[in-house]
Amino acid sequence: MTDLSTRPWQSEDDKFHEECGVFGVWNATDAAALTALGLHALQHRGQEAAGIVALDEGGIFHAHKGQGLVGDIFSDAKVMAQLRGRAAVGHNRYATTGETALRNVQPLYADFAFGGFAVAHNGNLTNALGLRRSLVGRGCLFQSTTDSEVFIHLIAISLYSTVVDRLIDALRQVQGAYSLVALHNGALIGARDPLGVRPLVLGRMGGEGGAPPSWVLSSETCALDIVGAEFVRDIDAGEIIVIDDKGVHSIKPFGKQPDRFCIFEYIYFARPDSIVEGTPVYDTRKKIGAELARESGVAADVVVPVPDSGVPAAMGYSMESGIPFELGIIRNHYVGRTFIEPTDQIRHLGVKLKHSANRPMLEGKRVILVDDSIVRGTTSRKIVEMVRQAGATEVHMRISSPPTTHSCYYGIDTPERGKLLAARHDLQEMAQIIGVDSLAFISLDGLYRALGKPGRDPKKPAYCDACFTGDYGIPLTDAQDNNDRQLSLLQAG
Amino acid sequence: MTDLSTRPWQSEDDKFHEECGVFGVWNATDAAALTALGLHALQHRGQEAAGIVALDEGGIFHAHKGQGLVGDIFSDAKVMAQLRGRAAVGHNRYATTGETALRNVQPLYADFAFGGFAVAHNGNLTNALGLRRSLVGRGCLFQSTTDSEVFIHLIAISLYSTVVDRLIDALRQVQGAYSLVALHNGALIGARDPLGVRPLVLGRMGGEGGAPPSWVLSSETCALDIVGAEFVRDIDAGEIIVIDDKGVHSIKPFGKQPDRFCIFEYIYFARPDSIVEGTPVYDTRKKIGAELARESGVAADVVVPVPDSGVPAAMGYSMESGIPFELGIIRNHYVGRTFIEPTDQIRHLGVKLKHSANRPMLEGKRVILVDDSIVRGTTSRKIVEMVRQAGATEVHMRISSPPTTHSCYYGIDTPERGKLLAARHDLQEMAQIIGVDSLAFISLDGLYRALGKPGRDPKKPAYCDACFTGDYGIPLTDAQDNNDRQLSLLQAG
Amino acid sequence: MTDLSTRPWQSEDDKFHEECGVFGVWNATDAAALTALGLHALQHRGQEAAGIVALDEGGIFHAHKGQGLVGDIFSDAKVMAQLRGRAAVGHNRYATTGETALRNVQPLYADFAFGGFAVAHNGNLTNALGLRRSLVGRGCLFQSTTDSEVFIHLIAISLYSTVVDRLIDALRQVQGAYSLVALHNGALIGARDPLGVRPLVLGRMGGEGGAPPSWVLSSETCALDIVGAEFVRDIDAGEIIVIDDKGVHSIKPFGKQPDRFCIFEYIYFARPDSIVEGTPVYDTRKKIGAELARESGVAADVVVPVPDSGVPAAMGYSMESGIPFELGIIRNHYVGRTFIEPTDQIRHLGVKLKHSANRPMLEGKRVILVDDSIVRGTTSRKIVEMVRQAGATEVHMRISSPPTTHSCYYGIDTPERGKLLAARHDLQEMAQIIGVDSLAFISLDGLYRALGKPGRDPKKPAYCDACFTGDYGIPLTDAQDNNDRQLSLLQAG
Amino acid sequence: MTDLSTRPWQSEDDKFHEECGVFGVWNATDAAALTALGLHALQHRGQEAAGIVALDEGGIFHAHKGQGLVGDIFSDAKVMAQLRGRAAVGHNRYATTGETALRNVQPLYADFAFGGFAVAHNGNLTNALGLRRSLVGRGCLFQSTTDSEVFIHLIAISLYSTVVDRLIDALRQVQGAYSLVALHNGALIGARDPLGVRPLVLGRMGGEGGAPPSWVLSSETCALDIVGAEFVRDIDAGEIIVIDDKGVHSIKPFGKQPDRFCIFEYIYFARPDSIVEGTPVYDTRKKIGAELARESGVAADVVVPVPDSGVPAAMGYSMESGIPFELGIIRNHYVGRTFIEPTDQIRHLGVKLKHSANRPMLEGKRVILVDDSIVRGTTSRKIVEMVRQAGATEVHMRISSPPTTHSCYYGIDTPERGKLLAARHDLQEMAQIIGVDSLAFISLDGLYRALGKPGRDPKKPAYCDACFTGDYGIPLTDAQDNNDRQLSLLQAG
Repeated sequence: MTDLSTRPWQSEDDKFHEECGVFGVWNATDAAALTALGLHALQHRGQEAAGIVALDEGGIFHAHKGQGLVGDIFSDAKVMAQLRGRAAVGHNRYATTGETALRNVQPLYADFAFGGFAVAHNGNLTNALGLRRSLVGRGCLFQSTTDSEVFIHLIAISLYSTVVDRLIDALRQVQGAYSLVALHNGALIGARDPLGVRPLVLGRMGGEGGAPPSWVLSSETCALDIVGAEFVRDIDAGEIIVIDDKGVHSIKPFGKQPDRFCIFEYIYFARPDSIVEGTPVYDTRKKIGAELARESGVAADVVVPVPDSGVPAAMGYSMESGIPFELGIIRNHYVGRTFIEPTDQIRHLGVKLKHSANRPMLEGKRVILVDDSIVRGTTSRKIVEMVRQAGATEVHMRISSPPTTHSCYYGIDTPERGKLLAARHDLQEMAQIIGVDSLAFISLDGLYRALGKPGRDPKKPAYCDACFTGDYGIPLTDAQDNNDRQLSLLQAG
Repeated sequence: MTDLSTRPWQSEDDKFHEECGVFGVWNATDAAALTALGLHALQHRGQEAAGIVALDEGGIFHAHKGQGLVGDIFSDAKVMAQLRGRAAVGHNRYATTGETALRNVQPLYADFAFGGFAVAHNGNLTNALGLRRSLVGRGCLFQSTTDSEVFIHLIAISLYSTVVDRLIDALRQVQGAYSLVALHNGALIGARDPLGVRPLVLGRMGGEGGAPPSWVLSSETCALDIVGAEFVRDIDAGEIIVIDDKGVHSIKPFGKQPDRFCIFEYIYFARPDSIVEGTPVYDTRKKIGAELARESGVAADVVVPVPDSGVPAAMGYSMESGIPFELGIIRNHYVGRTFIEPTDQIRHLGVKLKHSANRPMLEGKRVILVDDSIVRGTTSRKIVEMVRQAGATEVHMRISSPPTTHSCYYGIDTPERGKLLAARHDLQEMAQIIGVDSLAFISLDGLYRALGKPGRDPKKPAYCDACFTGDYGIPLTDAQDNNDRQLSLLQAG
Repeated sequence: MTDLSTRPWQSEDDKFHEECGVFGVWNATDAAALTALGLHALQHRGQEAAGIVALDEGGIFHAHKGQGLVGDIFSDAKVMAQLRGRAAVGHNRYATTGETALRNVQPLYADFAFGGFAVAHNGNLTNALGLRRSLVGRGCLFQSTTDSEVFIHLIAISLYSTVVDRLIDALRQVQGAYSLVALHNGALIGARDPLGVRPLVLGRMGGEGGAPPSWVLSSETCALDIVGAEFVRDIDAGEIIVIDDKGVHSIKPFGKQPDRFCIFEYIYFARPDSIVEGTPVYDTRKKIGAELARESGVAADVVVPVPDSGVPAAMGYSMESGIPFELGIIRNHYVGRTFIEPTDQIRHLGVKLKHSANRPMLEGKRVILVDDSIVRGTTSRKIVEMVRQAGATEVHMRISSPPTTHSCYYGIDTPERGKLLAARHDLQEMAQIIGVDSLAFISLDGLYRALGKPGRDPKKPAYCDACFTGDYGIPLTDAQDNNDRQLSLLQAG
Repeated sequence: MTDLSTRPWQSEDDKFHEECGVFGVWNATDAAALTALGLHALQHRGQEAAGIVALDEGGIFHAHKGQGLVGDIFSDAKVMAQLRGRAAVGHNRYATTGETALRNVQPLYADFAFGGFAVAHNGNLTNALGLRRSLVGRGCLFQSTTDSEVFIHLIAISLYSTVVDRLIDALRQVQGAYSLVALHNGALIGARDPLGVRPLVLGRMGGEGGAPPSWVLSSETCALDIVGAEFVRDIDAGEIIVIDDKGVHSIKPFGKQPDRFCIFEYIYFARPDSIVEGTPVYDTRKKIGAELARESGVAADVVVPVPDSGVPAAMGYSMESGIPFELGIIRNHYVGRTFIEPTDQIRHLGVKLKHSANRPMLEGKRVILVDDSIVRGTTSRKIVEMVRQAGATEVHMRISSPPTTHSCYYGIDTPERGKLLAARHDLQEMAQIIGVDSLAFISLDGLYRALGKPGRDPKKPAYCDACFTGDYGIPLTDAQDNNDRQLSLLQAG
């Protein structure tokens, strides 16, 4: 989901890589508590807000949403007691602040003529602005500023009679990337967009001795593990899964299209202990590191990851190159939600709150720094400077993704193109800006090789790699609309 | 406005008489701050929540809502700075707690195809449930559980092109009592229902030397006083007032009907320093007290008001009867929003947090207690018991309204009929239950006389007095609908 | 108690008349809940903060303190459950903000060698700064900035062995006004200073059938009423009352001195339904009003009180003069703890949040305004202006106390002398500053007459009237100390 | 510091290894902001509460304390602006909840006769209870329940005249482990106990061109790095450092004793990028891992650390043994301050919020798990179970410390002895309880070897290793006092 009012790709800081996580449970005791655990395991996909909608056995929906970490939002026993029922859906998100944000926290919920309906969305629609304009024109009133809300209005006005037919009707009208988990009074529903850009998996718990099993839908397998669910399979691209008391039903209303799963999930986004589309993430990252070592080896004394995301690639690099792996940068995990506003004096210190140099491992050494990506380049520059101040004699930066030259419109929070370092500079310039002795990115083909492919087939690329290639598999309707007028939105005071 | 999900008339405590206040400003510096002051002056009409929507000169709306007193909600300078602009509307309400409540706090706001629109509603619609069902049926999604939200959906789906025509279109479809203040990008709008049940006045500030004046709409004149506005006139029953940069325009789209202003505003609801429909409230209450003394005099030593609302009527009673007026009951105004949950031991004490007996004024005396109304009777019984424990030898209760035998469906929070003492018992029984030596209510004709009428004309009553007579001037469509099914609403966890 | 660091008499607003309330219970179920009720009834004596210390049957003390109203501080059932035990002491205060304030909220508590000890203090010590300096010099560490803390250090270092002997030892060293309620593991203790400046009463509950009764100590009788306790007697000036399981013991360690009870308690401070030193407060205020009418009658159309404190005196004035009493000024009781910071525009309106004019009662009338006192004169000036703007043709101000020409050093929060209007101006000037046609204060002798005395005996005045006369019955040691250095205190950041 | 009332070694969860961090700055712009940064870098030493006291140039002290992370406590620009001055001291701590805790948050502050004094304490006194009893006996009043408060009372009652002489007088009376940072109006003071159990280092900033430099005192060097200070030297055992405008003065008032620095700082407590007593922590941990591999090698497929603390030792183990190092356990860093209270159903799942198995790295493998210590054993047992459920065929646990058989009384929060797994069971039993195929701890001599010593000299051990040996170098006076009565302390309600 995306906030249509603030355009997240215009955010000024160097944040990158935030997305969303979705989770749903059918037919389980303490469904909301299981959902809270699942969202906790998916916390890396969005740390700003979370929500759960549960459905009790009397057909009443119960919701709780909040800002902050899942553990804090759902720690109150009274809150959990109210979220009663054997089915629930939940959502993690990144978000802005204020009342607006709370309106935007998912799952979204609506009272339809056929009853209540809750939906959680990971991804981003590329024609949401146009759809919204047309829905408002016919009298629909929007309560949030997220793209995701068009789903529920399209369902509300659909002329089909069943919930599933209305959902299919809605999905036919939207463009973009989505993995959805939805709940109504008769079923838990999962859906993935026709290209399968964002992940969604099915899990199963219990069901021994003929009792009906519990079913779980989740963005990643790591959330199946935490609730003790067994992995069943990935939801297919373009598939709709309807889970009710009779079991699991699969619907594929869209014609067959080639999948294009987001390759960035492997590089950075997914948790290392998840298995994504059949491939273990941690192992893939090590293989990318090894490939990177083969492609762009350099003489050095230590391989040092930028923690935590660069660690597996650095291990692969070290193993392949034979250069020792050392934790030359220490990450401070005790960074709260806020920190002191620095005075000029403090800013001058170039203080790094999250990383510190492990000086004895860097002093007098030739250092290979391994990181997963470069977005604006500001963080990389600070880290390189810190490593040099700690006494490194040479600093070589190796990046486990190709240069990020294009914005993502399919659900990952990237800056607009003009702010991407690799969109404005060639390799040499980037090395100079960042301050390294050498800089190398993995090649596109190398990346595909690490994923077990022979290389990238430009006619039928196996993954969505638009952020590296600009090859957008789904039309960018809103972005191409010249009349990209600001919405006349209510600002929370 | 009314909460359709919780049915306020089923609340278990003896609370009565809560309603709403509305306020709007056009063309004034610090419009939001003036609105906050106006809402403060209208605080007696609803103390649980308040909101303001301001419109800045760039056409952007800014909102802030909260629970509690106006002064606390709008005390933050940063909040007020964000509510910038020269036009604003605000609303005071009584409310329940939790996230649900915040969704319900007014003004309601919507992004229409023609732009933003904010509306604040005092009153209650009597066909809101039916309208809501039909709107949901055609695909409208409701975000709150208030009756007031039907206004904005009716406006959204109207086929008329101008805002005012859409509003008239909407008003033609609703039944009930309402005074509305609304704001869109070109005008401030006020509207009263065809019977003029709820109050609404127009005021004016400045405008000296040819500059365009500022305009104010308010539930009562006391809010004109606090901002220094001059009273211009009452909005007429069935009138729509449109205030824009060209001035004030009046529209009367409904046929002429006899007015029936709420008589209970005079008895209890309006602030004593307000002038309502041309009649000063304080003076009216004294006249009611005098009329009551004439109708049901009794030998006694002191006339004691139940503070604060019984004070003017007791003064009138005292003056007419010649029996001294004394503050025999002291009110403690320092009652916070919460208080200790009493243990059995404490409950046994029958503690009265709001009232205490002024023993030396009661001991050994024959006491006439004057109060404005009896709803369930529980409070009256406790007060009489307290007065007796303080040593009163006789207690005579005199009530400045006729017996409340029917629920209000037009915007005042009364219990359902079965809980009204006067609906279930005759005068004798009531006196016994309350524990008084004698009990008298003012007669209906006496009440009308105090208001300057010759008496009540049963064919053409000058006021809405349904709570005393059951003579409901506006159909009770929802209440008569047998299929009064509970809405399948989302419960905040 | 007084804050030694901020010097309350230097506060810049027009606040006056805040003090403290103390309450204690011995041998009662739910002692802490009863104390919360008692403090609620004493809320008029201080609204900024409150605290309770309870002693459980295992000899463990439990404390809870907070800022705000008693009802809000003690509304949490969990908090009340922790305050278990059959004995408790509590305190209401006015206070400044921040962490400093919380350290200063009473009851103060200390672990002595003989066990725990809690004390609540109403009044003000006049040699606290000197005592503090000498205690710090010998190694005592202070944790608060209140004068009251010297009591516990003096007790801690006393060479006597019993708690009561240590307390007497401490009281011999302090100067000033105090009513204390203290609790240790064997007794509840009450104490009044030798002149009996501040009030303290003893009450009793239960004890039927030979069971030991519960005992209550309270600043005023109104707090006995709320818990259902029977008034036993006032504590005498200079008396120490020790209540333990054997009963109530009286100790009078100081030589006999003439009492000088604070006359201002009658004029303003005590609640109208309290009986203070045998005299009903409400009735006294009416008598003062009548005396005032006799002393300074003037032709007028209405007598209007400045609510709420001026009401009984205005009633007395009206009755004596025959001029009708009317509520020409309405008080808004819904003023929260905070309010919008006015912009210049708003400030220019001269907005009055607490009072509004009841225009129909004032317009074209000659008005006698009755108020209890004039401190700086700023509030009076605003009220007079409001009354004139509402159309009064003449405004005559009558004050039910003599001119306040001196600061109080005995526990009432008055401005320093230089800011008292009556200390700097004669009657004529004051009338002009306030903007009235005439101004009169009751005479000193008139005030004494209203209290049943023949007049004031300058050699042996029956009351402490230092604020009107400068006749301070207790030495002002600290104030006279030229070396009135600022304490080097920790400021909360 | 230790809380004398709750006895931290009786806490029921498996928490271990929490301590405190201290930091001080002299002669620097934005001293409080630098202190906040230093405390942030020391956050691993205590995450529950923090405080800063700053001294401005007018000699006024300013304090701010709070619960939670440093970044959150000091994020408010207004708070930081109030903490003005060129000198400051700060403290991080672990703590319990409630008002009690806030009283206990350091730095402690007192107004002495000679002026203000603030002190922050890392360590634990072993005769604090006895000293407290005797101080209370002579009339001292304690405001907190920490052992650290005895310092300020001993200083307050000292008969010496200078602050430093009073401090030496106080230090002569206390027993235990301490590193202190204190601030008064003329100097910043650092002190370490005679055995130098807890760390303290001196750093320096600026001072170029003859300007007086800024000085920094800190628990660890990692906090010098964050503020850009240069490491000068460790404070010696038994040394008092006085830093004033003339420079740095060293006082060694205690006779020469052999140092016994806490060996556990190397194993777990210090941050890996700190250099402690001249030895880099990260490198030491790798050496311990290598030593462990030599002592207790075992055939296996992977070496897996228990993250994050086990990582460097596992790397050393892997390098020495040649068995591949893999991140077989993933740590979830998004654990908020609270989490859902598990229902029985959820508890049954054995959910691990902080760790998850990286299944593809464990499945079918013989796993060597490396952790830093075993305290109660409950966490180890859960982790082993998780690794087995992920498919490990063998699990061998290797611990980079000797068995923890004794409680720490010198400032580390360990359970009482009866709850230490190694105090109650031999190696075989422990292996069985934890569920591993083999279990080995590093030997005492091996640990000393990793630290560059030939082995442990039982007559003159180079470190405090009491938690492994029971060889307590400082008397445990309070613990040996049979009359270990509970303090009669005030409980916050």
